[in-house]
Amino acid sequence: MATQGQVITCKAAVAWEANKPLVIEDVQVAPPQAGEVRVKILFTALCHTDAYTWSGKDPEGLFPCILGHEAAGVVESVGEGVTEVQPGDHVIPCYQAECRECKFCKSGKTNLCGKVRAATGVGVMMNDRKSRFSVNGKPIYHFMGTSTFSQYTVVHDVSVAKINPQAPLEKVCLLGCGVPTGLGAVWNTAKVEEGSIVAVFGLGTVGLAVAEGAKTAGASRIIGIDIDSKKYDVAKNFGVTEFINPKDHDKPIQQVIVDQTDGGVDYSFECIGNVSVMRAALECCHKGWGTSVIVGVAASGQEISTRPFQLVTGRVWKGTAFGGFKSRSQVPWLVEKYMNKEIKVDEYITHSLTLPEINKAFDLMHEGGCLRCVLSVHE
Amino acid sequence: MATQGQVITCKAAVAWEANKPLVIEDVQVAPPQAGEVRVKILFTALCHTDAYTWSGKDPEGLFPCILGHEAAGVVESVGEGVTEVQPGDHVIPCYQAECRECKFCKSGKTNLCGKVRAATGVGVMMNDRKSRFSVNGKPIYHFMGTSTFSQYTVVHDVSVAKINPQAPLEKVCLLGCGVPTGLGAVWNTAKVEEGSIVAVFGLGTVGLAVAEGAKTAGASRIIGIDIDSKKYDVAKNFGVTEFINPKDHDKPIQQVIVDQTDGGVDYSFECIGNVSVMRAALECCHKGWGTSVIVGVAASGQEISTRPFQLVTGRVWKGTAFGGFKSRSQVPWLVEKYMNKEIKVDEYITHSLTLPEINKAFDLMHEGGCLRCVLSVHE
Ligand SMILES: NC(=O)c1ccc[n+]([C@@H]2O[C@H](COP(=O)([O-])OP(=O)(O)OC[C@H]3O[C@@H](n4cnc5c(N)ncnc54)[C@H](O)[C@@H]3O)[C@@H](O)[C@H]2O)c1
Ligand SMILES: NC(=O)c1ccc[n+]([C@@H]2O[C@H](COP(=O)([O-])OP(=O)(O)OC[C@H]3O[C@@H](n4cnc5c(N)ncnc54)[C@H](O)[C@@H]3O)[C@@H](O)[C@H]2O)c1
Ligand SMILES: [Zn+2]
Ligand SMILES: [Zn+2]
Ligand SMILES: [Zn+2]
Ligand SMILES: [Zn+2]
Repeated sequence: MATQGQVITCKAAVAWEANKPLVIEDVQVAPPQAGEVRVKILFTALCHTDAYTWSGKDPEGLFPCILGHEAAGVVESVGEGVTEVQPGDHVIPCYQAECRECKFCKSGKTNLCGKVRAATGVGVMMNDRKSRFSVNGKPIYHFMGTSTFSQYTVVHDVSVAKINPQAPLEKVCLLGCGVPTGLGAVWNTAKVEEGSIVAVFGLGTVGLAVAEGAKTAGASRIIGIDIDSKKYDVAKNFGVTEFINPKDHDKPIQQVIVDQTDGGVDYSFECIGNVSVMRAALECCHKGWGTSVIVGVAASGQEISTRPFQLVTGRVWKGTAFGGFKSRSQVPWLVEKYMNKEIKVDEYITHSLTLPEINKAFDLMHEGGCLRCVLSVHE
Repeated sequence: MATQGQVITCKAAVAWEANKPLVIEDVQVAPPQAGEVRVKILFTALCHTDAYTWSGKDPEGLFPCILGHEAAGVVESVGEGVTEVQPGDHVIPCYQAECRECKFCKSGKTNLCGKVRAATGVGVMMNDRKSRFSVNGKPIYHFMGTSTFSQYTVVHDVSVAKINPQAPLEKVCLLGCGVPTGLGAVWNTAKVEEGSIVAVFGLGTVGLAVAEGAKTAGASRIIGIDIDSKKYDVAKNFGVTEFINPKDHDKPIQQVIVDQTDGGVDYSFECIGNVSVMRAALECCHKGWGTSVIVGVAASGQEISTRPFQLVTGRVWKGTAFGGFKSRSQVPWLVEKYMNKEIKVDEYITHSLTLPEINKAFDLMHEGGCLRCVLSVHE
């Protein structure tokens, strides 16, 4: 390829400042250094972490930056020492790395690889602790080690999963964040068993993926809870068997659920990011064994609380990041499951736009009818 | 036996009012009704739940009552339909019942039997929802379904464990609460594995039993944390390998521990009942897998809190009641382990007094040097 080893100038949506519309710029993308991979992003979706950082509420957010972390593309070139992918490979960037060498990866107990975090957490690449993006010489920060709102991006080799080249990239880009998060919360973190009663708080993409995961795990009842009653219609297709709108009840929602389930649910999942709902999700669990998993990301500084008696009487409080999936090992497996029609992906895509329409896509996220909006990045 | 079917008049320590010295009274103990067992209590220890209810701080505490729940004795007589114990059997009363029939018992997931809770929670027996204790015709409430500060007590048949008659009752009475709670928190609730790094907050009886449990589980480091540095000497004998007094540090204790353990401990146990220590215990756990178990009982109305990010990044928050042991099935097994010298019991007994000295025994609980004080009930 002619571009290999060269700086590529391409289009990217730059967040110059918090809460100001993204601007499509001509961005210079430097070649990958040792252990790095330059990826041509073909499709990217938007997720709430993008919106959260963009809003300026994330104290660790750095500007200017290129957001985006739910995407798919093709490897353009690789830096020195990169062996596991090569130009032309179809890939999904992984904001949660997997190095297979660090204390975390070797523990066998978590997917939270620590290898590149010190760099990705501050918007740079590990090799020289600098950014590969610039606009007229001004560096632009990376975001989550992925920065997929760009026609080309540079990622660490531990942050990219090689997938089946037959998979439609405009669909499987969703396997970069929200859908695996929901499925994995059920399969890996909670390990829901057949016959379980499950409560899902928040029926956005993540909550629907939880419902789907619970259905495949054989849950007997999947209770969806949302303040938007319109969500129930769609949610039925993902396995939700009952719906409760907290606004229809005077009692606290945890009490409503306990009453309807003879003492509480076996598993609950908070898929909103609201700390008082996190408490309700714990407290609607059955005494003795009920397990609640926090999936939603709360705003910085907010805290969860409950009476310790809730835990002393046998409830368990957990959380999940990327559904506990080991990214490089398991995203390709999820792609295969999609190809074999064992998991849904298409059904989460409610809107398709192009990169220049990205601000419209952010607006869409606040609309009840939007699950995922996929942007075609090179159109 | 001449007493069978008769009201027995015997000595008991009655708590007439919150926070007033207990009074040794002549108490009438009615015969056991269907499904009940009358037990001659020979030895009883004191535990913090007794002191807590006595203090009046427990909003569910009822007066007048007969406290006590860590004891051992001999069956005097049994009511109709009782088949699993008979007069003369050596037993340990179990405040946590085990009926083997209710939803909880059948779940296989918890020891929190629900069969008699509705009665024991309000100080009465299930059969007629009345007390078997009275003083001059005035009923005296039961406590935790055990009321062992009496020469005779009546308990539900699901609340009594038949043990090896060779076992010294003045020792194994401790297997009624504190020691199993600590051991079980490690073995059943946390399931500590070989090589784990463990933190134990609070080095009273429960914390020391946690340390002992962690040692037998093969923990590589057992870090004891107490505000009383004198506790370290004793704690070494129970397996504690390192000691930290939070008062010796300016940094929050969770930070001190994270720094000394390359990122945090694998398991932590709060054995105090202090909600801010519960938070520290969670937050000193290693990202990705650290599990914190709440064992201490906080005062009513107090709440635990933390940032949800602590859980989203892989920590797990749990609690335990009676260490997760199924009382009737497993207390006899613990007695055997003691007889085989596989677990300590004698080492927790720092004081021995008689029932009339019970107020002195309550005072002793506030002394640093006291672990368990055992009362001889018929002297
Ligand atoms: N832990 C992780 O690894 C991870 C990964 C991806 C996303 N997330 C988080 O998951 C959360 C959900 O993401 P999403 O894309 O599904 O969001 P979404 O906005 O599409 O869905 C949220 C849903 O919650 C409902 N809701 C809002 N407030 C509610 C309340 N008080 N009670 C009941 N329902 C309420 C909304 O109506 C909406 O349907 C976000 O916080 C996101 O940041 C976490
Ligand atoms: N969950 C259960 O089933 C169960 C059963 C029995 C006891 N408990 C509870 O376990 C707790 C411990 O019982 P115990 O008999 O071992 O109590 P204890 O009073 O003998 O021991 C508590 C220890 O904690 C230390 N301590 C106090 N404040 C501290 C602080 N801020 N930081 C560090 N150390 C501190 C004290 O110096 C003492 O050594 C109590 O709350 C009791 O009610 C729970
Ligand atoms: Zn996301
Ligand atoms: Zn790693
Ligand atoms: Zn106790
Ligand atoms: Zn039961």
